[in-house]
Amino acid sequence: MSSARYFRECVVRPNLHTKPTNGVCPGYLQCNLVVLPQGQIAFDFLLFCQRNPKSCPLIEVCDVGSPYPTGIAPGADLRTDIPKYSIYRHGKLDKEVTDVIDYWPKESVAFLIGCSFSYDGELMDAGIPLKSVQQNKNVPMYKTNLKCRSAGSLKGNMVVSMKPIPSLQISKHVEITSKYTHAHGGPVAVGSAEAIGIKDINKPEWGEAIDIANDEVPVFHACGVTPQSILMDSKVPFAITHSAGYMFVTDLPSRMGV
Amino acid sequence: MSSARYFRECVVRPNLHTKPTNGVCPGYLQCNLVVLPQGQIAFDFLLFCQRNPKSCPLIEVCDVGSPYPTGIAPGADLRTDIPKYSIYRHGKLDKEVTDVIDYWPKESVAFLIGCSFSYDGELMDAGIPLKSVQQNKNVPMYKTNLKCRSAGSLKGNMVVSMKPIPSLQISKHVEITSKYTHAHGGPVAVGSAEAIGIKDINKPEWGEAIDIANDEVPVFHACGVTPQSILMDSKVPFAITHSAGYMFVTDLPSRMGV
Repeated sequence: MSSARYFRECVVRPNLHTKPTNGVCPGYLQCNLVVLPQGQIAFDFLLFCQRNPKSCPLIEVCDVGSPYPTGIAPGADLRTDIPKYSIYRHGKLDKEVTDVIDYWPKESVAFLIGCSFSYDGELMDAGIPLKSVQQNKNVPMYKTNLKCRSAGSLKGNMVVSMKPIPSLQISKHVEITSKYTHAHGGPVAVGSAEAIGIKDINKPEWGEAIDIANDEVPVFHACGVTPQSILMDSKVPFAITHSAGYMFVTDLPSRMGV
Repeated sequence: MSSARYFRECVVRPNLHTKPTNGVCPGYLQCNLVVLPQGQIAFDFLLFCQRNPKSCPLIEVCDVGSPYPTGIAPGADLRTDIPKYSIYRHGKLDKEVTDVIDYWPKESVAFLIGCSFSYDGELMDAGIPLKSVQQNKNVPMYKTNLKCRSAGSLKGNMVVSMKPIPSLQISKHVEITSKYTHAHGGPVAVGSAEAIGIKDINKPEWGEAIDIANDEVPVFHACGVTPQSILMDSKVPFAITHSAGYMFVTDLPSRMGV
């Protein structure tokens, strides 16, 4: 049993891990979850991912009705193996829960989208500090003014996550992360929150604020919370997602052969 | 006006070019076309492409009802700007026509998939001969025993195209083509037709047979005719495609930034 599978089945499933998953199972690809009812909205979302690969790099789409992503996570059940879920109704967050067995639509389509936590292991190996992990915090996430390409009824702006990175390590950070195109790739912006329409870097819309030291620069990556923002902006009747920062850990190697 | 646009609007649209498009407009990305009615079948096909990026690298999906791929080919109309189309009904080729204005479903979804003709220009620049162009022939295409990953109701095997390449240039051919992941990338097989279940290399299912000289080796690339084979095997009620070898020439650079 891989350490990722152990984490899913023996730690997350019995609700023994109730924190965000940044820093967890380094070397394994982590994913965002979006579950929609079958039909036009599922088509629109699949097309949205196709048109916005930077924020929505699709790793897997389950067969209709199935919560089992067998190809990328043997033994996993998407209804129980994520630490925290968000239920959206008519474009609003309705509640957060630790499993979604009672909410999973019979004719569902589950989408898994690569997460930037996937390269945390390689960043740490390269000596780039992860302040959110050091401080035991979730990462901060923000709405931006970067428009996504719309698809059918779905439209809205990109959400980004932020890491403070030491100024001297920015180049190395870009070199490493830009290889992970299946997990948002290199930063969409470096250094200026204003450039992408973020008004107050200390007030993220999701996750927790993190201090930026004098020798550090904020680095912004496209984020798999983008779909949640899009689903809200587009007033989608019903959706299940992971809660921001609480990811699904797959058995895929985080580098996926890059 | 780009040479690609001139070719579409002033040559193909008035039916002045009735041959395959191999060797045409070098430097511009060429695409396969699949048009399906909106609904479950369009979702299944979009998922099929997502799951089979080697044979179906999606370049663009038009909005529902639209035959205008504005982002990749300004001024183009997908109903007239391809030299030859195939109409499929209930899994069988019904007819071939030079425009599809009368057949285009009102609630259509048009998919454009990268074509390996896109790297022909770079191969020629590198001194790798294109025998099909030299001999004024379509390329040969074959069904293989390589199973695609199924998606909903769609399942079947990969179709490949074949080029005879001089033995001494195989390495260069792989180096060049493997960069074009948006146009099927490197070969799926080199040298043995038998290895991928092709019984008679002189009897392609689509296109025309091409002689292989003693100093040449057959090289097989995933082909955008795969969807046509899948649509037939899956007995899809209705579809419009390009005819094999008669591609849509876009305004995108063939290398797409690789």
